[in-house]
Amino acid sequence: MVATKRKPPRSIWMFGLQSDEPTEAQRRAHAKELSERYGMTIELPPIPRAEELRLRAPRIKPPDAIAEFCYQDNYERALHAGYRTGLALRGETLNPPDVVAHPRTEEELERVLEWCSKNGYATIPYGGGSSSVNGVTPPEGWDGIVTIDMDQFDQVLEIDATSRAARIQAGVFGPELEDQLRPHGFTLRHFPQSFAGSTLGGWIATRSGGHYATKDTHIDDFVESVRMLTPMGWWESRRVPASGAGPDPNRLALGSEGILGIITEAWMRIQARPTYRATAGVTFPSWEKGYEAVRQIVQSKLWPANLRLLDPELARGSAGLDGTRALLALGFESADMPQEWPMRQAIRIARENGGQIDDDAILYADSGQYTGRGGAVGAWRDAFIPRGGGLAAGLGTVGGTVETAITWERWPEFDRQVREAFAKVLKEVCGGGTLNCRFTHVYVDGPAPYYTFAGFYRPGLGTQEQAAVKKAASDAIMKAGGTITHHHAVGRQHRPWYDQERPEPFAVALRAAKRALDPNWVMNPGVLIDP
Amino acid sequence: MVATKRKPPRSIWMFGLQSDEPTEAQRRAHAKELSERYGMTIELPPIPRAEELRLRAPRIKPPDAIAEFCYQDNYERALHAGYRTGLALRGETLNPPDVVAHPRTEEELERVLEWCSKNGYATIPYGGGSSSVNGVTPPEGWDGIVTIDMDQFDQVLEIDATSRAARIQAGVFGPELEDQLRPHGFTLRHFPQSFAGSTLGGWIATRSGGHYATKDTHIDDFVESVRMLTPMGWWESRRVPASGAGPDPNRLALGSEGILGIITEAWMRIQARPTYRATAGVTFPSWEKGYEAVRQIVQSKLWPANLRLLDPELARGSAGLDGTRALLALGFESADMPQEWPMRQAIRIARENGGQIDDDAILYADSGQYTGRGGAVGAWRDAFIPRGGGLAAGLGTVGGTVETAITWERWPEFDRQVREAFAKVLKEVCGGGTLNCRFTHVYVDGPAPYYTFAGFYRPGLGTQEQAAVKKAASDAIMKAGGTITHHHAVGRQHRPWYDQERPEPFAVALRAAKRALDPNWVMNPGVLIDP
Repeated sequence: MVATKRKPPRSIWMFGLQSDEPTEAQRRAHAKELSERYGMTIELPPIPRAEELRLRAPRIKPPDAIAEFCYQDNYERALHAGYRTGLALRGETLNPPDVVAHPRTEEELERVLEWCSKNGYATIPYGGGSSSVNGVTPPEGWDGIVTIDMDQFDQVLEIDATSRAARIQAGVFGPELEDQLRPHGFTLRHFPQSFAGSTLGGWIATRSGGHYATKDTHIDDFVESVRMLTPMGWWESRRVPASGAGPDPNRLALGSEGILGIITEAWMRIQARPTYRATAGVTFPSWEKGYEAVRQIVQSKLWPANLRLLDPELARGSAGLDGTRALLALGFESADMPQEWPMRQAIRIARENGGQIDDDAILYADSGQYTGRGGAVGAWRDAFIPRGGGLAAGLGTVGGTVETAITWERWPEFDRQVREAFAKVLKEVCGGGTLNCRFTHVYVDGPAPYYTFAGFYRPGLGTQEQAAVKKAASDAIMKAGGTITHHHAVGRQHRPWYDQERPEPFAVALRAAKRALDPNWVMNPGVLIDP
Repeated sequence: MVATKRKPPRSIWMFGLQSDEPTEAQRRAHAKELSERYGMTIELPPIPRAEELRLRAPRIKPPDAIAEFCYQDNYERALHAGYRTGLALRGETLNPPDVVAHPRTEEELERVLEWCSKNGYATIPYGGGSSSVNGVTPPEGWDGIVTIDMDQFDQVLEIDATSRAARIQAGVFGPELEDQLRPHGFTLRHFPQSFAGSTLGGWIATRSGGHYATKDTHIDDFVESVRMLTPMGWWESRRVPASGAGPDPNRLALGSEGILGIITEAWMRIQARPTYRATAGVTFPSWEKGYEAVRQIVQSKLWPANLRLLDPELARGSAGLDGTRALLALGFESADMPQEWPMRQAIRIARENGGQIDDDAILYADSGQYTGRGGAVGAWRDAFIPRGGGLAAGLGTVGGTVETAITWERWPEFDRQVREAFAKVLKEVCGGGTLNCRFTHVYVDGPAPYYTFAGFYRPGLGTQEQAAVKKAASDAIMKAGGTITHHHAVGRQHRPWYDQERPEPFAVALRAAKRALDPNWVMNPGVLIDP
């Protein structure tokens, strides 16, 4: 008899736990502030409680063999209905799963997947549900939808300290994972923005972007082997440091977004906890000077852990700069040796390109004590951590992010075109808005820029307007040669652009591969590819 | 009217050009030396000349549309009959292609592939033909075999100095490629042992291992995008520094070994030519001390370009050490900054683990002048460059290499088991032999060991005995948890072990993908997967 582990209740309408939700007073204060800013009364919609939601009645019933770990209550179904069920706040009809399964063992997972595949139910593998691209939103047009929530698979099973690797279950959330590695002196050091509300399995399935700004940017680089249940059986790659035997099986699981199977565990490369650190916030007289410096630093192959450039607008808003200067957050870290040398090399290159920083503003630590919380970088770091996401829920604001990657020689023109597209569409849709950009990751051959936009408030703005802005930006990214996503994944939202981006024969191959592994086409249908 | 470029004639019976072939006098001297060593008369078989070979008559005839660039003469057919046609020296029957095409344009390539696919001829994509695993050996059981030699696709088409990338045709040989990059101050720095006789397309198709001993070890890490002709049309991935959009299409082309299509060009990440270098040869009192030091150096993340450890036997044979000490070839390089600091860090770790080197034996250079040709490392480096491969051809010696990768915690026991298997099989088959090991590449989580074996000479040894030794070693590698190949590819030779290694659902997916792209199953049949 396997016991179900109780997890802290999660918010059904915003990213995070119920305990993270803002109070009514906080929400009212925010709506009042917005009302005053725009000189109008902005209504605060009520927060739905799970038991009050009128959801479509479940259309299917789990058989006895799996009933014990399957749920059909409003909380479970609303929580799994999609990203930030704030949707419901805007009066939109939800398309919840009929059943939410929380298998506790691989054998239970086999049972529920067999039931889904045999009966042709859409099957949604679910980690933390933090997808910002509708990657785990149930699709329309199915008579039965089953979401498989992997939250019971939350253990670090094995640590190989010699090889620096660990066997980890897929459903573990970021903080739980770090808590289990910490006593052994290790860390995965994979901190996507969704860290607190996303899981290892989700990171692998979506090729998430992590802590390191250079070199080992995606989760891909830390995967030794993957264990995944497909409708045709278990997929488990051999655990070796590297191989040249045929196309890498791990690389077909990475980014598969649940269409081939459901990941249960992986051997992951882990890190010794860094004790030596060097941190600097370098300012530049312009965006252009900043990104030229970043190009030279990354091409010098010093591989800083942090190399994140903020454009003048973002440096102003989040770090208090004057709006003309760009800010570079530069950092090195090591478990083995002081980082003065690489830092000085990088600072030299930055200064050669107009970068400014006083020598005594470069912070070093050799005891594991982090030194970078002060100054401009610290201010930006705090702004990076998502907070108060719930405050704007239901107010009808238009805003969000797009992210991509582009080679250096095309970058300046690319940036110009994307900004132009944003300016135009924000004007049309919202009467204007704000836009800023930062590099989240940087490669020898180009940056991964991340644009954050916010439209001015107008009554009546909603999903359609949000989509219009996103579409215009995505069109511009595609046209100017970028990828539709560097680390947010494809999901259902990025499909039109993904279909343009991928080579057509690759689509043919992927479609055939999915059909062979998932004959009834039940695994996360609508994501990545259609029959 | 496209002119066919004349290429220097290649040897039909050994790796390299005809101009690399040993003279009769050299061959006689070698046979004599061997005869004296073993106290018997070892016969020297005659070298076949292409025009004397009695090959099976061509069974198919290229139509007019492609005839101009298709060849059916003995030289072309023998050259493309497989790896080191030295086979013929041992009196074995060749299975040559019926037609060898040398398309000069993509349009000509389309024509020949269409002809092959439509008529169901086995189609072998061919770069340099250096495969040591029968990757381009025509398969048995086909009524028509066409080898497509890409040697006319030999140009660097475009250089993007800003992003440090170049668009390069697939059929360019290593030295030709470097010759074209050099005037621009760049280099690919991919030097597999086959460098002189292998091509970019071959490296990509087989995931070859290159210059860098750590971090960017495989060609995989340098591929920005691939252009490949499949029977279903052109596969061209978008050129971006990185993407998180679905499984990476490049990673399905990488290692595809010609079963999905034929690569015509790729955007490759290139390197600024290094000007600063640091080189050291560190000796260790034992193999165990040496590999423990290597583990700590790679886990410190200094990422040396060279970190190659030779076991005492190899250090003795190739660098003149005493047979008890291991030798580490350690090197750093940079186009931007002196490498004293990282070298001193690595030397400190080496010494903490028993490594010995005098401070003044560490060589530095800051003018691009390479300093590592002296001392133990230089001696080893010379031994690494393949020379005189033709001397042993046809003499019936048993010898070769196996290579793999394994995690550190399993490595000592793995090494013990593999050596035990070698000792046993060499005794059985050859009455004994020699064995040595080096690390060609090293990862944070484990080494890529490379074993070189040579059986004692016995009259009558041939292909079967060679295969028996290889089989015993490969079985041991599989059983002890390694991969069947870190960088030699699968080809036809490694198939039995590859089939054990890959996850079965991945095989299902790959089979379906191939069937969808290559409906008549003509592309390099027998490699990687069967229908």
